[in-house]
Amino acid sequence: MPKLGLVSLAVAFLSRVARSPLAETELPVVGFHPYLWGDPAHHSGLPPAIHAALSGLGVTAPARPAVPPDAVPLPPVALSEQARAALATEVGAEHVDSGHDARLAHTRGWSTPDLLRLRTGDAADAPDAVVFPGSHDEVVAVLRVCAEHRIAVVPYSGGTSVVGGLAPARAGFAGVVTLDLRRLDALVEVDPVSRTAVLQAGLRGPQAERLLREQGFTLGHFPQSYEGASIGGYAAARSAGQSSAGYGRFDEMVVGLVLATPRGTVELGTAPKSAAGPDLRQLVLGSEGVLGVITSVRVRVRPVPGERVFEGWRFPSFEAGAAALRRLAQDNPLPTVLRLSDELETAVNLADPAAALGSGPGGCLAITGYEGDPAEVAARRAAATEVLLAAGGTPLGAGPGESWRAGRFRAPYLRDPILAAGGLVETLETAAFWSGLHRLRAAVTEALTTELTGRGTPPVVLCHISHVYETGASLYFTVVCAQAADPLAQWAAAKTAANLAIRSCGAAITHHHGVGTDHRAAYAEEIGPLAVEALHAVKRVLDPAGILNPGVLLPPAGG
Amino acid sequence: MPKLGLVSLAVAFLSRVARSPLAETELPVVGFHPYLWGDPAHHSGLPPAIHAALSGLGVTAPARPAVPPDAVPLPPVALSEQARAALATEVGAEHVDSGHDARLAHTRGWSTPDLLRLRTGDAADAPDAVVFPGSHDEVVAVLRVCAEHRIAVVPYSGGTSVVGGLAPARAGFAGVVTLDLRRLDALVEVDPVSRTAVLQAGLRGPQAERLLREQGFTLGHFPQSYEGASIGGYAAARSAGQSSAGYGRFDEMVVGLVLATPRGTVELGTAPKSAAGPDLRQLVLGSEGVLGVITSVRVRVRPVPGERVFEGWRFPSFEAGAAALRRLAQDNPLPTVLRLSDELETAVNLADPAAALGSGPGGCLAITGYEGDPAEVAARRAAATEVLLAAGGTPLGAGPGESWRAGRFRAPYLRDPILAAGGLVETLETAAFWSGLHRLRAAVTEALTTELTGRGTPPVVLCHISHVYETGASLYFTVVCAQAADPLAQWAAAKTAANLAIRSCGAAITHHHGVGTDHRAAYAEEIGPLAVEALHAVKRVLDPAGILNPGVLLPPAGG
Repeated sequence: MPKLGLVSLAVAFLSRVARSPLAETELPVVGFHPYLWGDPAHHSGLPPAIHAALSGLGVTAPARPAVPPDAVPLPPVALSEQARAALATEVGAEHVDSGHDARLAHTRGWSTPDLLRLRTGDAADAPDAVVFPGSHDEVVAVLRVCAEHRIAVVPYSGGTSVVGGLAPARAGFAGVVTLDLRRLDALVEVDPVSRTAVLQAGLRGPQAERLLREQGFTLGHFPQSYEGASIGGYAAARSAGQSSAGYGRFDEMVVGLVLATPRGTVELGTAPKSAAGPDLRQLVLGSEGVLGVITSVRVRVRPVPGERVFEGWRFPSFEAGAAALRRLAQDNPLPTVLRLSDELETAVNLADPAAALGSGPGGCLAITGYEGDPAEVAARRAAATEVLLAAGGTPLGAGPGESWRAGRFRAPYLRDPILAAGGLVETLETAAFWSGLHRLRAAVTEALTTELTGRGTPPVVLCHISHVYETGASLYFTVVCAQAADPLAQWAAAKTAANLAIRSCGAAITHHHGVGTDHRAAYAEEIGPLAVEALHAVKRVLDPAGILNPGVLLPPAGG
Repeated sequence: MPKLGLVSLAVAFLSRVARSPLAETELPVVGFHPYLWGDPAHHSGLPPAIHAALSGLGVTAPARPAVPPDAVPLPPVALSEQARAALATEVGAEHVDSGHDARLAHTRGWSTPDLLRLRTGDAADAPDAVVFPGSHDEVVAVLRVCAEHRIAVVPYSGGTSVVGGLAPARAGFAGVVTLDLRRLDALVEVDPVSRTAVLQAGLRGPQAERLLREQGFTLGHFPQSYEGASIGGYAAARSAGQSSAGYGRFDEMVVGLVLATPRGTVELGTAPKSAAGPDLRQLVLGSEGVLGVITSVRVRVRPVPGERVFEGWRFPSFEAGAAALRRLAQDNPLPTVLRLSDELETAVNLADPAAALGSGPGGCLAITGYEGDPAEVAARRAAATEVLLAAGGTPLGAGPGESWRAGRFRAPYLRDPILAAGGLVETLETAAFWSGLHRLRAAVTEALTTELTGRGTPPVVLCHISHVYETGASLYFTVVCAQAADPLAQWAAAKTAANLAIRSCGAAITHHHGVGTDHRAAYAEEIGPLAVEALHAVKRVLDPAGILNPGVLLPPAGG
């Protein structure tokens, strides 16, 4: 495969389509396209360079045109009139929507397989209705109605799952209802002394951020799905944002939560930390809607930073760069953002004509970002700079850092035109302890490459570290290749190979994408049969009828 | 009540009886006294000043002399010969001990009520046998035998519970066996790259610390029960050490664990953090032996610090001092140790002739400690000093800091002679968000004072902050008064009043002592009936016969 072809593909893929930085409080257009990534205002065509690069990967013809949304056939509405009436009684008839647009827009999430299915007109997982409750009590009431009528419920805040978290097993149920929490969009309370805020689950990232900034605070949580994802989803799926080194993961920000279940309310969190039994907040966080619906969280917030600096660094190799990141994670100081691309992902960025990365290609690009009080940022940055220099890093200045920051929510927008052009692109991620990280990266890259090459579609596999801890880090992979005749089967095989590699390295099956249905089997292996049984037992207590997201996280059977 | 009497009592109580600092790796004498705190090498009599001070609190006569250990009557051994033989088959006959000394030494824990009961010769909770398994597999095997024979099992690593965590409900069982993990005392593995270590559950604090330091690492975990407590207990009861600001709580150090249950093994932790479902490690941590027996943990370790500095600061009031601590916790830099005594606890220290605290009495004493690389410590200390000065603190130099460090494991040793002299002393603790902290302190102090004064035994109530977080902190109370005729009922009433105050403030029923049996009812209120039911359901999966620590953490009845 021609190396230059790969690079130019990667360039086109990762270089920032839109150059204007997205302000973190800029609210995207409400009402996303049912099967295109993110904010319609940022959709774009495919630059000619990518067409050429895709050719280099064996793409010969564009994929069949996507079925237009209006023409996607939906299964008949299975909801009984009684059930519909009961739901309408709880939330108002105007908040129960069985129309084509609402059902299609709530069909599955944002993974490549999700998009591929909708492109071909497969909306078999469409819910029978979308219900929009207006309060916590209405959520509880809706869950009770659904339990009575044996209707499966898909809790939905942002709808951005990339792991099949919004496609429940319909078998055995009288219908499927999506519970869209967008009306739960209040900043309920700010406690400036404790620096906590109570946020309702339906607040999307930019909304929450805008409301908090009016009070002088920030959440500091910026996952790549930021434009569409919501507070409830952050909590239910253990989101990790791009500034996790400085602000922590979302599950570390949550100090309290309210859970609606078919049997009533569970309220947790009386103090930051305690020894009062197991930390049940951590049982609910990551439960992906199968134990209940998180309707609000109390989160730790921070003052809006007075200073922000983003920079680039070059390291001679991924190993050298990873060692530098490890030094910062273990011995401090920790930047707010800390990332490292591998050689191929870096080649991409170095070849990006808009980014002035200094002396020639090669090596690995790291991004460091610092946010906070100006004096604190200056001191932290100076100390981190010393560590990075001592670890063999070459400073590249603000250019690459600001370029990364400006485009950080934009990369996924290229997926849709790539799919249309006959290419396949998807991402996956994992995490491990530091000592196993390089073996893990090699194993996953090897597995993806072997599987996809064996199917006649040799891939480009890019990798970066985006989240660091004292004892380990995450790895994030981007895979690009030509679409095979059956791209769903093609990706499923590649994903299975990657999962096997991850499991054989003893690493986590997911670092921040979640389990959904895609990782369910590997997750069960990871925690073992007794732990699976324990989770089923908890579910039976909180959701005796098993209506909550059946088949997500856990096998649908129970016990 | 004469104020000076209180102060001199407090002086005597809190001033360090033994002046020689205890090295953190100094291994205490093995074989503690069955009902005296800690290491027998440090037991001492009561200084005359305390006798005088106790008089000021209404103590008129010494308590009845304690029944000597040999003379404490034990209930007959209830274990059947078959059960005993089955246990012996699994661990060897020499590791099943039904002798008087072993049974008495494993009767209850180290709370004041525990000591009061043994002093009067009440050992009704003595186990029928103490079993010493030699491996994880032997633990699983013992649990299976006990499930078969319906024998209740008390997991026991250090035996230092102060909340009744070692006194299970015997009703309905054919016997009670204590599972003493002291033979699981290996440092199994050190991963210097990831900075993790695998420690077996039976390692006591100083043992673990000594083994780790041979490899250049430290756990940095120093709870007040350090001399006796063990790794398994730290994990099972969510211990927080005195250096928690710098090293974190024990539940934050654990990245992996192995749990033995009657149904087999659960192994958790593939990466520092992940989005693979709920964090089940946090379900096991704090489960206090009712879900299984933690046999080993993988913990984050740190290099042995090259530099240590401990200092004292004076603040004009508790409120001012708390505001300073909050500044450090929220805006950094965070010292490794950060504590603040209230006015009365401070008066004690200021009156301590051995500590040179500078200009006169009054105000509140804070202790700051810094550990780490010398340059890092210097920078952090300089920055923290600026914050403390700006917050109105007066630096008192190294004297009070070093004095605190030298005596930090010694204060509890005075309890035994105080009890013998007819005084009553006990501690309790809670945690809350910052904005509720002062109301909480006032409410608990008021509740204890009113209740005990109403019973004719007006108390001294001292308070300090010993653990800080971005969003809140812990409060630790020490209560001293005269013993009433029935000191158990007296303390139970005081404790109930304190619990009520804590619950009415919405605070955590315990920050680091745990739930045990003492906090069980308040804990159930705190998490609510659905969460209690969920925990019971998990227990039924892992421990279907309900043999594990019945009545601890959860009501014994089940579901």
